[in-house]
Amino acid sequence: MCRAIALAARGLGTTSPNPVVGCVILDSAGEAVGEGFHAYAGGPHAEIVALAQAGDRARGGTAVVTLEPCDHTGRTGPCSAALIRAGVSRVVIAVADPNPLARGGVKRLRQGGVEVVTGVREAEAEQGNIAWLTAVRRGWPYVIWKYAATLDGRSAAIDGTSMWITSEAARMDVHKLRSTVDAVVVGVGTILADDSRLTARNLRDGTLNIRQPLRVVVDSAGRTPEKARVRDGAAPTWVVTAADVGAGPDGRVDLAALLAGLYDRGIRAVLLEGGPTLSGGFLAAGLIDKIIGYVAPKLLGAGSPALADAGVHTIAEAIDLDYTEITQVGPDLRFTAVPRKREG
Amino acid sequence: MCRAIALAARGLGTTSPNPVVGCVILDSAGEAVGEGFHAYAGGPHAEIVALAQAGDRARGGTAVVTLEPCDHTGRTGPCSAALIRAGVSRVVIAVADPNPLARGGVKRLRQGGVEVVTGVREAEAEQGNIAWLTAVRRGWPYVIWKYAATLDGRSAAIDGTSMWITSEAARMDVHKLRSTVDAVVVGVGTILADDSRLTARNLRDGTLNIRQPLRVVVDSAGRTPEKARVRDGAAPTWVVTAADVGAGPDGRVDLAALLAGLYDRGIRAVLLEGGPTLSGGFLAAGLIDKIIGYVAPKLLGAGSPALADAGVHTIAEAIDLDYTEITQVGPDLRFTAVPRKREG
Repeated sequence: MCRAIALAARGLGTTSPNPVVGCVILDSAGEAVGEGFHAYAGGPHAEIVALAQAGDRARGGTAVVTLEPCDHTGRTGPCSAALIRAGVSRVVIAVADPNPLARGGVKRLRQGGVEVVTGVREAEAEQGNIAWLTAVRRGWPYVIWKYAATLDGRSAAIDGTSMWITSEAARMDVHKLRSTVDAVVVGVGTILADDSRLTARNLRDGTLNIRQPLRVVVDSAGRTPEKARVRDGAAPTWVVTAADVGAGPDGRVDLAALLAGLYDRGIRAVLLEGGPTLSGGFLAAGLIDKIIGYVAPKLLGAGSPALADAGVHTIAEAIDLDYTEITQVGPDLRFTAVPRKREG
Repeated sequence: MCRAIALAARGLGTTSPNPVVGCVILDSAGEAVGEGFHAYAGGPHAEIVALAQAGDRARGGTAVVTLEPCDHTGRTGPCSAALIRAGVSRVVIAVADPNPLARGGVKRLRQGGVEVVTGVREAEAEQGNIAWLTAVRRGWPYVIWKYAATLDGRSAAIDGTSMWITSEAARMDVHKLRSTVDAVVVGVGTILADDSRLTARNLRDGTLNIRQPLRVVVDSAGRTPEKARVRDGAAPTWVVTAADVGAGPDGRVDLAALLAGLYDRGIRAVLLEGGPTLSGGFLAAGLIDKIIGYVAPKLLGAGSPALADAGVHTIAEAIDLDYTEITQVGPDLRFTAVPRKREG
């Protein structure tokens, strides 16, 4: 299963609206004879790739798969039937499929006389697929808020300069992060201040990644300039106005409606890259699933904060998180944290 | 020498204006026969404690000591003479004494026929005595800036509440830190906002440490209330007005003059505990030697920043640091960093 989970991870960022899935086929003697992962929506599922590699050696063997095999005919046929047809006698599964359209694989396999074991290394496989699973279970995308700031929480100096707060190593890490999500979301303020490209690219030579996340500009009043770099042809772009998806009581883009709209477009994982007001709006609405912060060993003492106006008025209302990882990226500190579930 | 350095550390916070020193005496066969550390100014030096324990067994043996033995008669006699008198044939030293009054020990020992080796584990011993060595070499105290903040760099919510940003574990760590310095410095704003006690104490039962750092309130205009807790009898207190030590061009207490005044009072290590404006003043003046930050996994999005007005106007002027340690204290992240030397 460890190998299957590692295989699944290769699909991160390219499979939406599908999950990442990895599969290993063992022959009747327990020898690995085939492996595969799901690489892109419309392409073959992990089980099909692994079965093709295994060929006849799958007969009487075991399929180890990170997610319950689908029982659904979409652009490809159901994996449950393919496993039965290949003569596999046992299927070992980590996580059950929450997708109402595709699930039912376990039932079909058992009906076909295949022994099924579920829940193997479930937590680990769940973590590897957390964005997709979370999104599908509740119907809106998984949102990662990424920010870069100084130790005193500033994202720009008082004169507005911000290039660069963090090191090249940290910025390269962000581009890797962009390549694992389906959409990158910023507020129009970021576009007006930095004219950001928001593409996933190699920072050294500027080469664009083959697959680009959707660039989303939250722009309630439609202020994104016609010549903004984000409107270039390098990647698809959606400039979202309040007229597009509806507004909240403050006249700004309704963020829940925005996320629902993204989900409908097949987006499962979103990287929110600021600015401070938009990030505060997402946090205040409880719409952030994970936070990744790059903290440079620098002090500014003045200038724009990384976060503004998250609806907190007193210390008891502070948004509590739990650190899940703390590492160094070049000279910078990188932490990941998840909001603690709120009571009430 | 490792043992001697560990012994020296036991004196941290109680020896000023003297350094911490540790000493191990080995007999002629290389067996440890005495050890000691300097515990408080006016008390016996490390060498004297160790020699007393070793007695006759010191004859022909080796003294391992973290700092060059003094050659000065103050409240106690010169250690150089005591080592010669005890018949030690070899002295191994980590760091040379920078104090013009006390140094000369190596010369005296060699004149007395003792073999002297210097520079053994020098970097490590230097680090153990860094505050004292730095202070004595340049004539003003070593300043550690400690702050507690949320991930977004706030020290209080918008309504002024700040108890508690960090965990009990982090606050206990701060009290341990206070017990290793000679003075705790805050701005009058902190006293007016929190009526802080600024004592080093056991947070569980409130017991005061036996030795208390000097409590220093930087109070340019003399606004500290008569009934402020910081004026209670629990520890000595100095409320410093601009009239006391002189003012800078802005009419505020001249911070360099303040530090010189503290040095004259025997203070070698200072813990600066804020608030934001005073900390910004110290940073802008380049008077901070080390930063210890406690960063709680919380977000506020508004409220007082941990740092204000450090004289930085554009990103290129940001105060660059190097992280020296990153750990977790309870749920909080604790980092230490040192300002990078500035060119020019």
